[in-house]
Amino acid sequence: MNFTIKNVLIATDDDYTTVDVQVVDGKIATIAPDLDVIGAAVDGRNNLLLPGFVNAHTHSSEMWQRGVMSMLPLELWLAELYDFAPLDLEKVYLSALGTAVETLLSGGTSVVDHLVLIPGQELETIATAVRAYQEVGIRAFIAPLIQDEPLIASIPAGNSVPNNETYFRSTGATLEMIAEAVKQYHRPEEGVSVLVAPTGIQLCSDALFLGCIELSDRHNLCRHSHLLETKAQEKLAQEKYGCTAVEHLQRIGYLGDRTSLAHCVWLNETDIKILAQTQSTVVHNPLSNLRLGSGIAPILKYIQAGVNVTFGCDGASSNDSQDLLEAIKIGSILHNITDSEYQNWITPRKSLEMASLGGAKGLNIADQIGSLSVGKQADLVMYDLTKLSLLPRTDPIGLLVLGRPVNVVDSAWVNGKGIISSGQINTINIDNLKQELFNRSQWENKRKSPGVAQIETHYRQIMDL
Amino acid sequence: MNFTIKNVLIATDDDYTTVDVQVVDGKIATIAPDLDVIGAAVDGRNNLLLPGFVNAHTHSSEMWQRGVMSMLPLELWLAELYDFAPLDLEKVYLSALGTAVETLLSGGTSVVDHLVLIPGQELETIATAVRAYQEVGIRAFIAPLIQDEPLIASIPAGNSVPNNETYFRSTGATLEMIAEAVKQYHRPEEGVSVLVAPTGIQLCSDALFLGCIELSDRHNLCRHSHLLETKAQEKLAQEKYGCTAVEHLQRIGYLGDRTSLAHCVWLNETDIKILAQTQSTVVHNPLSNLRLGSGIAPILKYIQAGVNVTFGCDGASSNDSQDLLEAIKIGSILHNITDSEYQNWITPRKSLEMASLGGAKGLNIADQIGSLSVGKQADLVMYDLTKLSLLPRTDPIGLLVLGRPVNVVDSAWVNGKGIISSGQINTINIDNLKQELFNRSQWENKRKSPGVAQIETHYRQIMDL
Repeated sequence: MNFTIKNVLIATDDDYTTVDVQVVDGKIATIAPDLDVIGAAVDGRNNLLLPGFVNAHTHSSEMWQRGVMSMLPLELWLAELYDFAPLDLEKVYLSALGTAVETLLSGGTSVVDHLVLIPGQELETIATAVRAYQEVGIRAFIAPLIQDEPLIASIPAGNSVPNNETYFRSTGATLEMIAEAVKQYHRPEEGVSVLVAPTGIQLCSDALFLGCIELSDRHNLCRHSHLLETKAQEKLAQEKYGCTAVEHLQRIGYLGDRTSLAHCVWLNETDIKILAQTQSTVVHNPLSNLRLGSGIAPILKYIQAGVNVTFGCDGASSNDSQDLLEAIKIGSILHNITDSEYQNWITPRKSLEMASLGGAKGLNIADQIGSLSVGKQADLVMYDLTKLSLLPRTDPIGLLVLGRPVNVVDSAWVNGKGIISSGQINTINIDNLKQELFNRSQWENKRKSPGVAQIETHYRQIMDL
Repeated sequence: MNFTIKNVLIATDDDYTTVDVQVVDGKIATIAPDLDVIGAAVDGRNNLLLPGFVNAHTHSSEMWQRGVMSMLPLELWLAELYDFAPLDLEKVYLSALGTAVETLLSGGTSVVDHLVLIPGQELETIATAVRAYQEVGIRAFIAPLIQDEPLIASIPAGNSVPNNETYFRSTGATLEMIAEAVKQYHRPEEGVSVLVAPTGIQLCSDALFLGCIELSDRHNLCRHSHLLETKAQEKLAQEKYGCTAVEHLQRIGYLGDRTSLAHCVWLNETDIKILAQTQSTVVHNPLSNLRLGSGIAPILKYIQAGVNVTFGCDGASSNDSQDLLEAIKIGSILHNITDSEYQNWITPRKSLEMASLGGAKGLNIADQIGSLSVGKQADLVMYDLTKLSLLPRTDPIGLLVLGRPVNVVDSAWVNGKGIISSGQINTINIDNLKQELFNRSQWENKRKSPGVAQIETHYRQIMDL
């Protein structure tokens, strides 16, 4: 599957140049003008070639509830989400396909799926997502979402009596299940990696975190988690540990250069220094943080402190899309209102670096993907600069990041394999996917969540509402 | 051009229903199930019908600089914009076409173009934009952008010596030009209205505002203006008037139910009450406010105070698109982070009402457009609910507002005239438009603005940077 892209625009340090790109055995072999055609020739004229982005945090099965979730803060929103989440494996399969397709069509070639597991069918859920991602051909990072405390534990107790509910599966059984998932599905060289991914301090014991650290060290796995998405979680951390969540995670050894942390909205200056020191990665999910009213993550401070930052869509029920270019745009311009010193604002070129190399760093594979570099995997996306949303011609990267590109991905390759050509997905039948999504759903707008009713009074009290 | 849409989904007060819609002589004649087909039959199955939205504030010619403008706050950004704005009439024409097309493809059927005029060719500029909008068929509100003070006047003086530059055209000449524009082009019944539109308190004398009020009253014209977009403008108003800009505009009589005001980021509680009392309309331009670091307009406060609010894209150089659905989404969820009381958050149905009826109110034609009501003009948009970005089926309006719809507009009508069918613009040749935009531009990323260099030191001093 060797090929040569002819006459394509690429970004240099501070400009653009037109080159040819040879891809051999899945890797970028040569980048230079006037190269011979090796393998198939791809016409790159009036196209921009970029490294693929990483959709660095999502929950694929949330696609089934996008558009219908109430306008609620995270803690109540989660109660509604779980009330209406009777998943089956076929739905897991279809939403993983949908997540992969929307990610690819918006420039992503890798996805980190913080995968919600069907109770009692945990390994089957993972197997199903793996199958979907391999069929589409996206590079997949499966982060099975685990916890060992019941949902109510995620809300600060305040003065109320602590809850004595227990979680349905023991910490030990959960860790065994993840160990088995690693054994069966962790195949980085085939484009599927498994991450350890306790959902966060709000629902996980130290024992679970420590078990994950041990697994991660034994198999060289990346680590993932939600971190301080909401003010309620900030309160909870103080209740639970008497210190910030970041301080606690550092103390138990969860942070590091293989650790990526979704959200990071409620961190203080000391926490930020800890993230920088430990070389942890922040995954910024701006749409979700707005939709759930979580707040604005202090991304400019992270960048100034030297913390690696990348972007995620988060699950489609809190976004309500999987369009990475949208997350990149909003996740970049949103921060201009947090700092009147405009010299600190994120430029479009910086945004792209965060979305590609930043994502690769967070997955500990910056030596393999994330930039147009000879020897790296050919995870590439080619954008058609003649599309209306990228005209008139000005700065191609500015148009891509700051505009609202529509139908602009002409081609995408993962590991040198062509996934999109002429704007169409090659690997699966999109009409079938649409038909299946249509058939397994119905228009509805009158849901009532018993879960929200159950905890709302307590939530309002704790949050002074 | 009568037609009947069969079996289309419409929103009821709190649900959906499937109906037929007869359109006769440009107006909605009947809405009910099982109607006879009058005129052409349109298949509405699996489509959602909504009133068209209003793109209630933009500057069409900014399309020529989208993607390339530096990351700067408004005052410096404007200096750069004007350094690179050598417009000609052909460019005015093409960017008006582009603005209309992107607005229509994202659900808008009306556009308010705060139109930048070519010095010395003011009436020709207006004529050209009118021609473009009439060719596309969008309902057009031309708001010729006028001022009578030089750009430097928009920056607070602080302790520096006041500037003595004068504007190149006198106040009287400007008002005469607008009067002539009204005479020649104000034809509401033909879908083209002229508004009086002094750019804002930062560049306009009271004489200019008063002249506009007089014209507005004489011809029953709507009034438009920027208002308190930046903190610098808030400072400037205090310097210039010794009170807030809103208090001043109320005092001179500019506010009222025919007045729409773009941005409104820096208003205080008293100002908000004044907007409510005077029944003025706020046009929220969320993308622009983020991109330029202007701030978050207190939209939830406006809504609670009973102020009419609608959405605009603002010019494409500060957005950098003309996608109304994007502005609606971000302009809705952005405010969740400003109020922890989630019961105040904007629901998707409220967003749509703001975008349609809110826009109509701001243009003083809520009796003619803005809702699916018998007797109103048929400014309609039909969305294809089988598109991937609107699947799986959940709440159609939730998907449309909170998702990231792509290629979802199946049909659009303005005044009963079909502008879009099967997702394609009928009225102009889009391939030609793209070719013209391509030919008249070049990829570039190395501009240097002398204007910014000239004022930056002063700006930084005044803004304590």
